[in-house]
Amino acid sequence: MSRVRVHNFTVSLDGFGTGEGQRLEEPFGHAGSRLLQWAFPTCTFMDMGLHGEGTGSTGIDETFAGRWATGIGAEIMGRNKFAPTRGPLTDDWRGWWGENPPFHTPVVVLTHHPRPPLELEGGTTFHFVDATPVEALELARELAGGLDIRIGGGATTVREFLQADLIDELHIVVAPILLGRGERLWDGLEGMEDRFVIESITSPSGVIHLTFSRRGD
Amino acid sequence: MSRVRVHNFTVSLDGFGTGEGQRLEEPFGHAGSRLLQWAFPTCTFMDMGLHGEGTGSTGIDETFAGRWATGIGAEIMGRNKFAPTRGPLTDDWRGWWGENPPFHTPVVVLTHHPRPPLELEGGTTFHFVDATPVEALELARELAGGLDIRIGGGATTVREFLQADLIDELHIVVAPILLGRGERLWDGLEGMEDRFVIESITSPSGVIHLTFSRRGD
Repeated sequence: MSRVRVHNFTVSLDGFGTGEGQRLEEPFGHAGSRLLQWAFPTCTFMDMGLHGEGTGSTGIDETFAGRWATGIGAEIMGRNKFAPTRGPLTDDWRGWWGENPPFHTPVVVLTHHPRPPLELEGGTTFHFVDATPVEALELARELAGGLDIRIGGGATTVREFLQADLIDELHIVVAPILLGRGERLWDGLEGMEDRFVIESITSPSGVIHLTFSRRGD
Repeated sequence: MSRVRVHNFTVSLDGFGTGEGQRLEEPFGHAGSRLLQWAFPTCTFMDMGLHGEGTGSTGIDETFAGRWATGIGAEIMGRNKFAPTRGPLTDDWRGWWGENPPFHTPVVVLTHHPRPPLELEGGTTFHFVDATPVEALELARELAGGLDIRIGGGATTVREFLQADLIDELHIVVAPILLGRGERLWDGLEGMEDRFVIESITSPSGVIHLTFSRRGD
């Protein structure tokens, strides 16, 4: 069976995956770009073309960041990661990601306002569904052609998949900042360490990389 | 001026410094002994005689744990760290710590039910005061003879001193467990990274040691 994976999901020391006040100009709300500061200089994030041009780093942070795409056949994301608005999507709104999104696979977008799929350049097609985590995962598996599924975020989506015990591999990055408010990743996950082997390593950039691997695999 | 320090204060990945349901038999509530599992084998904790006899470890965990007593002239602790009960203390109740507590300095206990000081063996005297963090720190400085002050916990006490910006050095340990409920350390501390240089290192025991050093020192 294909595996369900989370990569590069970053939280503050106090456990927030995004700040308060998310909007078009500030996708992470008052957190600004601080949560992903560690990632922007990496080869992997540079290659996405979202944060300027240049030669990316190839150190510890890149070693983790670079795993995100390998073997992935589809992503599942929350509505907030697709678009900062609420309610039905207008026909002309194509999300954050521009004409050539960095996913290059089918992407299942969880929303209470389904609409027809949106096919963009580079192999990314967004599928908008009102579905439980289990249902979304079934659809993603159909679309993924036997490859793995990435749960792309935000915090609520990752948390719901963890609570439903649907995730096999989880890479969390802890950034040394305190956001104080926003969306918490860790709520309602008491005892999760019983299901996962948890390892950690620090990076010279100041973040901590945590890997959670399902026990018994 | 003497410095205000926190050592060996341990939180779960989801930020709880103690579990729910603290009582005499379970000082950390449903967390049991899991938060301090990293500390028990160290020389420093072995020497306190609280967790059995034996030769303690002298590795990375001990390197951090061992800093707790050096240069300390007084501790400030919350009522919960002294005793698990609520309301006035009865005359025969002498706290968790036995006849020869491991502090060997004056200890200021924050409580809404002051009582006369309690002098025990080995140089530990408990002073029970109903005081703000600033007032408690003034008293502790008078008692400390020019040495540093340790803020001993629990989570609420450390958090209140951080919120009042009274702490110079903070050593926090993150244990790879998810408690789900209990007392949070990090609430209301947005932007604390502006005041501290934060460093981290992982230990083979599985915990992460974080040091917070006041900027500009």
